Amino acid sequence: MQEIERPLVLCCPLPRTLELIFTPGRLADLRARYRLVETTDAALPGLDDAVLAQARYVIGQPPLDHATLARLSALRCIFNVESNLINNMPYDQVFARGIHVVTTGAVFAEPVAEIGLGFALSLLRNIHGADADFRAGREAWGGEGNRGARLLTGAEVGIIGFGDLGRAMARVLQGFRPRLRIHDPWLPEARIVEAGAEPATLEAVMTQSDVVFVTAAVTSENRGFLGAEAFAAMRAGAAFILLSRADVVDFPALMAAVASGHIVAASDVYPDEPLAPDHPVRSLPGFLLSAHRAGALDVAFQRMGEMVWQDMGLLDKGLPPNLCKRAERETVARMRSRPVSVN
Amino acid sequence: MQEIERPLVLCCPLPRTLELIFTPGRLADLRARYRLVETTDAALPGLDDAVLAQARYVIGQPPLDHATLARLSALRCIFNVESNLINNMPYDQVFARGIHVVTTGAVFAEPVAEIGLGFALSLLRNIHGADADFRAGREAWGGEGNRGARLLTGAEVGIIGFGDLGRAMARVLQGFRPRLRIHDPWLPEARIVEAGAEPATLEAVMTQSDVVFVTAAVTSENRGFLGAEAFAAMRAGAAFILLSRADVVDFPALMAAVASGHIVAASDVYPDEPLAPDHPVRSLPGFLLSAHRAGALDVAFQRMGEMVWQDMGLLDKGLPPNLCKRAERETVARMRSRPVSVN
Amino acid sequence: MQEIERPLVLCCPLPRTLELIFTPGRLADLRARYRLVETTDAALPGLDDAVLAQARYVIGQPPLDHATLARLSALRCIFNVESNLINNMPYDQVFARGIHVVTTGAVFAEPVAEIGLGFALSLLRNIHGADADFRAGREAWGGEGNRGARLLTGAEVGIIGFGDLGRAMARVLQGFRPRLRIHDPWLPEARIVEAGAEPATLEAVMTQSDVVFVTAAVTSENRGFLGAEAFAAMRAGAAFILLSRADVVDFPALMAAVASGHIVAASDVYPDEPLAPDHPVRSLPGFLLSAHRAGALDVAFQRMGEMVWQDMGLLDKGLPPNLCKRAERETVARMRSRPVSVN
Amino acid sequence: MQEIERPLVLCCPLPRTLELIFTPGRLADLRARYRLVETTDAALPGLDDAVLAQARYVIGQPPLDHATLARLSALRCIFNVESNLINNMPYDQVFARGIHVVTTGAVFAEPVAEIGLGFALSLLRNIHGADADFRAGREAWGGEGNRGARLLTGAEVGIIGFGDLGRAMARVLQGFRPRLRIHDPWLPEARIVEAGAEPATLEAVMTQSDVVFVTAAVTSENRGFLGAEAFAAMRAGAAFILLSRADVVDFPALMAAVASGHIVAASDVYPDEPLAPDHPVRSLPGFLLSAHRAGALDVAFQRMGEMVWQDMGLLDKGLPPNLCKRAERETVARMRSRPVSVN
Repeated sequence: MQEIERPLVLCCPLPRTLELIFTPGRLADLRARYRLVETTDAALPGLDDAVLAQARYVIGQPPLDHATLARLSALRCIFNVESNLINNMPYDQVFARGIHVVTTGAVFAEPVAEIGLGFALSLLRNIHGADADFRAGREAWGGEGNRGARLLTGAEVGIIGFGDLGRAMARVLQGFRPRLRIHDPWLPEARIVEAGAEPATLEAVMTQSDVVFVTAAVTSENRGFLGAEAFAAMRAGAAFILLSRADVVDFPALMAAVASGHIVAASDVYPDEPLAPDHPVRSLPGFLLSAHRAGALDVAFQRMGEMVWQDMGLLDKGLPPNLCKRAERETVARMRSRPVSVN
Repeated sequence: MQEIERPLVLCCPLPRTLELIFTPGRLADLRARYRLVETTDAALPGLDDAVLAQARYVIGQPPLDHATLARLSALRCIFNVESNLINNMPYDQVFARGIHVVTTGAVFAEPVAEIGLGFALSLLRNIHGADADFRAGREAWGGEGNRGARLLTGAEVGIIGFGDLGRAMARVLQGFRPRLRIHDPWLPEARIVEAGAEPATLEAVMTQSDVVFVTAAVTSENRGFLGAEAFAAMRAGAAFILLSRADVVDFPALMAAVASGHIVAASDVYPDEPLAPDHPVRSLPGFLLSAHRAGALDVAFQRMGEMVWQDMGLLDKGLPPNLCKRAERETVARMRSRPVSVN
Repeated sequence: MQEIERPLVLCCPLPRTLELIFTPGRLADLRARYRLVETTDAALPGLDDAVLAQARYVIGQPPLDHATLARLSALRCIFNVESNLINNMPYDQVFARGIHVVTTGAVFAEPVAEIGLGFALSLLRNIHGADADFRAGREAWGGEGNRGARLLTGAEVGIIGFGDLGRAMARVLQGFRPRLRIHDPWLPEARIVEAGAEPATLEAVMTQSDVVFVTAAVTSENRGFLGAEAFAAMRAGAAFILLSRADVVDFPALMAAVASGHIVAASDVYPDEPLAPDHPVRSLPGFLLSAHRAGALDVAFQRMGEMVWQDMGLLDKGLPPNLCKRAERETVARMRSRPVSVN
Repeated sequence: MQEIERPLVLCCPLPRTLELIFTPGRLADLRARYRLVETTDAALPGLDDAVLAQARYVIGQPPLDHATLARLSALRCIFNVESNLINNMPYDQVFARGIHVVTTGAVFAEPVAEIGLGFALSLLRNIHGADADFRAGREAWGGEGNRGARLLTGAEVGIIGFGDLGRAMARVLQGFRPRLRIHDPWLPEARIVEAGAEPATLEAVMTQSDVVFVTAAVTSENRGFLGAEAFAAMRAGAAFILLSRADVVDFPALMAAVASGHIVAASDVYPDEPLAPDHPVRSLPGFLLSAHRAGALDVAFQRMGEMVWQDMGLLDKGLPPNLCKRAERETVARMRSRPVSVN
């Protein structure tokens, strides 16, 4: 009897797995409270009507057409655990019915911000280069080893994009008391001011910063919005750190700016992933390289499951989800960050 | 006439130079307000009695015997701009006369703390190693590239020594909201508590930390106080970061602990500097290397001069120095950190 | 021609007025960018179809029936500037159409939190009583005047309700480094933890606090949830500070707890407002009184207009509102805090 | 035997008592570790030579002449537990011998800063006046009750004097994110900057602040330095809060400035204490009164003993005192704040 009453959850979390995003204990909790139906994006529409009609939640981001969505008559929330919203369902119908579509991408904010600060400190103090030199027996001691070294404390720092990642970036920077300028065209200025930073134009961020962090997602409007002109306008010796998606920059132009010695850079993302073995960025001095690994920590994946679990609890109590981020009618169709296919 | 009234300053700042520690503008200010007598440690005792009798300040850390000190009858303050106090003058006589002996070592706190955090993030996320791998075409993408990676936010962090550097370390860590344990046997617990941290025994710091920063100066009592046993008691995979002087650790034991894979480490200081070309630490995996360059930034040296300038201003007004750190009767003779001979 | 293209805004902001919530400059901006139709709750349904059909925004909280709502065919957002949501429109229809209903109540968070901290300090140190005694010539000097006085720094503090006001309360308390326990049944624990506080049961907050701030709105579920038993379970001498609405407490029981000397209290809200001239709370020692004035500052009203203005700007750009707080399908019908009829 | 080896402490702590400043447990600790000789200022010089010769510490601030001081041949530290330094001993001789003279006045910083913020909030929001009006049945509801009310968040705030109290003031203000200007002629600007505030002239603090806190001690140089002109130059409606000593202001001029309606004020200190029953400040509207009770909390007195205990422990280990504040050769003779005669 009790079996019948447990809410039903459709699970198709690829590229994640339930085991990746839930600890064993939490997965047991989940199975105790809900009936889990493990399926795939492809198989979901073929499930029995009775199953679809009882599904309260979906964990995953399956493509859904009007008909399938209609059959999901009890659906309250779709938990996208990849984290990038895709235009793969009739959002009008979803929103009209009051179904929440949410993502757990916020779990990546903390690990990405931490490595982002690590990139900045490595660039400003040449930590990686000095280690390589020391190993090669060509280290320079004391002040001789600090050509171009700069402090971060009190520096002028820019952040482009002030979502979860931008906020986490500002948090890990706190102890450095930077003068922080933030550009985010989707946010009212008051949100930036209340975070203790200054709202700024893209130009101001690019031209008046010692370090620039790019955390903006790709949208239908901002592909390649940072190009040769923007890099040329940066301060000499400034550090440019790319943390979101390569599509927001003109990557060859970024490489050229670094190659010229005008700026230094670090990136976690690339136009192609994996990157060709002979890609010239691999041998570019002044460009710190990381293979799209900034967010993919085990602990981040486990927080995904925790967010899903806690928000399901709120929804079960008749409250809206709170920890996951909701897709918005106004913006969902503009998102263009490509999902990952591996964890 | 005015010439006679300007206070006289004896300058023997080696290994620093006046040009290193004062900006051109400030050096001009200094020359306008004081008579500078540029001398050397060796030449100072041979200066005319009239010169010594008029000297109000010394910039440098010259050895002084009783007789010379007696001739420095108007002396109010010795500004040690190397930063390590040396047992090279009759401190009893100095203190009895109310002469201040101060150091400007605090200028290194900020640059050392910044690179220290950079070391920690590089170790926790393998930033330097991943860059080297990427350049060699053997990078691992996504989660595959994060074996052993850890977050710093919320981690348990220990700091050994809570002077200027320890405090700066705590400041740059702020945004990571660590659980911070601090060991400093020379400080009352209340000073650590009011900084928002927990006073802890050395054992607690070593055994309960994910990251340990060593900032303690060498004294007559603490040479080699961190040895094989202490490293073995650390958490598996913890990071040990040495920022002060190599003499506080048993360096071979530290290398062995890293070589065994039990911990990872970073160091800015070594038993011999420069280090022998064939020293085994140069090829030790898991050991991040930096050639005593953590503090030696131009901006740090210029802050030295600024501290001297501002404290001279206070002393001229009949106030005690405030920015520089004073030698204490009780502890001055216990200091053993070796001065540097190059900047 | 341009006239036709300016978006139309229906204005019925009572008890506010456009002049109260917009500065003269901002009101001019508003008139330049929009066509303002000033109306009233009662008159709105009688407006021409053409007017209603063009209205993009409503400033106010007018009752709307299905028919009127249908005629408001271009409506995107209703800006409730009173701040309490009322069950006076068919929310299902509103949400199905994707119309935002938002409130500007967040503007009161800062002024209410500030006076709330002022109440706490006045109670803990008897600031108001000592002033009255001094004026009456019966002041007690030094320690004699501090019977029962307590520090707030490091105290255990509870907050009930962690919306905008609760968060502002936590912010103004920051410098006191309290141990902060927060109870909010509508929030996941993670939200409280990330604010640096501890999620707690209502019982824990009431029994383990030196000071309790009540910031929770009245809902269909929490009327009178704090009664005699809860007050009796508080620490002897603790301070209870009521900032939201009187309906969340059993007011006579609160008075009795204060009259017995067990706790002290402050309140900005009352079961009836204005309160009867002979109400016994007026002469109750240990009960600090304020006449529902905590939020009603001119600057708060002007921030209302600014929030409306900035969010209209976002909506005009096809983005969702950000500064105002949105009514939620799940909770809108549960709200019971009575609107005010005067500013 | 052991008895002989316990260090000897001379105790003449009036107006404090050992029972006031030590908890029972700590007093037992003290008696176990030291031989306490309880004496008085007057009786101390008459003690046996053997007793004086063994005394390592004095708790109190007794007048000492050259001869008595010479007999105190083992003396290391005088713990002044009243907190104001007095010119009652030959400081040259004291300092030449390396005897520390320290005060425990820092214990008052926290309670005084807390009530100081309470005064500010009461003045800005008329908390005390509104309570009195409510009790008298003449309260004004809502916005009507907020004539002249102001927010503290983001306000321009000035602090005069940046010792322990000034720093505690800055701390409790943190959550309000004020623009903070600080005037302290004895401090280098860098100390103010590193506290996140702006060094400012006295004039800037007085003329550009919404709230001014006076925390400066009286010295030989600053008696009455705030007079009619300074008050007239304040912003209309600004709040002036006096927390240190009445001698730093021209008190009648302060009263006149408040009487004219130009500013509001709060004070914890008065030209005469206790104040005459018919003193006109008692009936002055706009002047919040407190009878020198800001610091005199039991918990503050107990912290005194704790500071003494912890610093004795450091001294016993051959380290300098750390928690108590040291008298300085340069400034000790300039202090003029009158000691209190009651707790």
